[in-house]
Amino acid sequence: VPLPEKALIEEVRRFARSRSTGNVRLGIGDDCAIIGIPPRHEALVTTDFSLEGVHFRRQWHPPESVGHRCLARGLSDIAAMGGTPIAAFLSLALPARLPQSWVDRFIKGLLSLAKRYSVALAGGDTAQSPAGVLADIIVMGSVPKGTAVIRSGARPGNAIYVTGALGGSAATLNLLRTKRKVVPSETDRHFYPRPRLEVGRYLREKHIATAMIDLSDGLSTDLAHICDESSVGAEVEMPRLPLASAGKPPTSVSVDLALHGGEDYELLFTAPAKTRVPSVISGVPITRIGTITKVRGLFTRDASRRTPLLVRGWEHFRRT
Amino acid sequence: VPLPEKALIEEVRRFARSRSTGNVRLGIGDDCAIIGIPPRHEALVTTDFSLEGVHFRRQWHPPESVGHRCLARGLSDIAAMGGTPIAAFLSLALPARLPQSWVDRFIKGLLSLAKRYSVALAGGDTAQSPAGVLADIIVMGSVPKGTAVIRSGARPGNAIYVTGALGGSAATLNLLRTKRKVVPSETDRHFYPRPRLEVGRYLREKHIATAMIDLSDGLSTDLAHICDESSVGAEVEMPRLPLASAGKPPTSVSVDLALHGGEDYELLFTAPAKTRVPSVISGVPITRIGTITKVRGLFTRDASRRTPLLVRGWEHFRRT
Repeated sequence: VPLPEKALIEEVRRFARSRSTGNVRLGIGDDCAIIGIPPRHEALVTTDFSLEGVHFRRQWHPPESVGHRCLARGLSDIAAMGGTPIAAFLSLALPARLPQSWVDRFIKGLLSLAKRYSVALAGGDTAQSPAGVLADIIVMGSVPKGTAVIRSGARPGNAIYVTGALGGSAATLNLLRTKRKVVPSETDRHFYPRPRLEVGRYLREKHIATAMIDLSDGLSTDLAHICDESSVGAEVEMPRLPLASAGKPPTSVSVDLALHGGEDYELLFTAPAKTRVPSVISGVPITRIGTITKVRGLFTRDASRRTPLLVRGWEHFRRT
Repeated sequence: VPLPEKALIEEVRRFARSRSTGNVRLGIGDDCAIIGIPPRHEALVTTDFSLEGVHFRRQWHPPESVGHRCLARGLSDIAAMGGTPIAAFLSLALPARLPQSWVDRFIKGLLSLAKRYSVALAGGDTAQSPAGVLADIIVMGSVPKGTAVIRSGARPGNAIYVTGALGGSAATLNLLRTKRKVVPSETDRHFYPRPRLEVGRYLREKHIATAMIDLSDGLSTDLAHICDESSVGAEVEMPRLPLASAGKPPTSVSVDLALHGGEDYELLFTAPAKTRVPSVISGVPITRIGTITKVRGLFTRDASRRTPLLVRGWEHFRRT
């Protein structure tokens, strides 16, 4: 077999063994993994593709970043439910001519993030890819029964909040697109997004969030998801938007990127108007950006001007 | 978006809603699915790729068969643990020019098998594919705590059994390879394999099986997995091998296909020599084919002749 399957499996097994926790009863190497769900908890499951040419490019993204982003996508979904991740499963198809060092660095990036959140890599599948690196990450977590924060709980009058700052990932992507040299920094949310697991858990435990989603497709698209599922509308106050900084010297990103740029992996949530929401949770700034309305539709407000907010879907690298 | 993503998601959602069971608390349409695991049970998780050109070919396999085989791979892994499936998750990347009818028929084949075993399609991911149809199926199931039948339980002196007949799927594949016209029949295990869920569960409940695996890679490879994990050897009695029938008129497949042909999705298990094992379980014949030995290594026995059994890995369509 020309594929580094065996080496990969061995490498992953070694890690899985050393990291296996009480909840992973059986990891890689059988027909299924066996995962214990804590008593009176429910399981959370999310799956996310990371496809070369669609979600990343090998010329742009170092292998460690590809591995990190791959797992971060799944962890961010767990964060958006207020859950705790338990185990990840990686289905990975590799082209025959891929250097072994690329695979090693990819796994290193993925496992390094897994370790930070005590997530075990408990299984997956490997195959030879017909075209490019194809990864599918599955993350399983848990949450106390009936307490997950879902998308459909937003109510008219609720305040709308976001964590961190918006548009930073898209700004870096724009730099990559214009072929300017970008040094992938550990602190750049495009290359190394940090899933907001602690914040998500806090918002659930303190019964603050009525609805929550992670910002993977961009604020306009993800806010539309919450509004659709909750049968409500929303008004975003433009001056309140926390704009990310990017470039050297750092300057604020455009409002357009903050509204429509994807892959920031911040959390967007709603809370009753009277609920006291801390301005910082686990070191992450929390900003109120608007209000849920009874009238359907999305709007932005800038001083006295009210404008319909166009929902622009995030298409990753598809059309670049 | 040129991709039939929205139509697909809507179609799948409609089904998911109508089929949602008590265990699927929240299905498609949020950041994660929420799955209830029955009290005193553990979760089983398995992931399997179905990649065009690697696991199937669009010229050979009707879309319904591709969808059926995709889910069957995962269900068969649950069967091999003696578990009960709860929910499936489908990550599906489609090329831009794929006809909508292909997707509809693929989903139909997958959901038809899901319905037969009361498995809910509870989530997944969609993307545009850089090359061919790429599917990753995740199946989640459950089993009472500590009772899953794993690969490492085979002991010297245990008898070795298989369900059904062997080599049928590989025989059909050989016909496809020689470009002979093959009419995909509903009863052909290559096109429509039936996962042995009832048999697997029976073997666990009655405490019959000491180790179990599903035959996806072929008898020699999968028996080697059990022996490796259990630190034992095995001797296969050649005259006992249940050979599948194939072709018109039906003739028995070669011993070679029965030993090394993959994708039969039968169960291979071991049981103590003195345990009474039914000759038929849920309508499926059970055949004793050999014995586990203390001495490592795999052998075949034919009358008085003992020959080392070469382990030949199954490579799907890779090199055809």
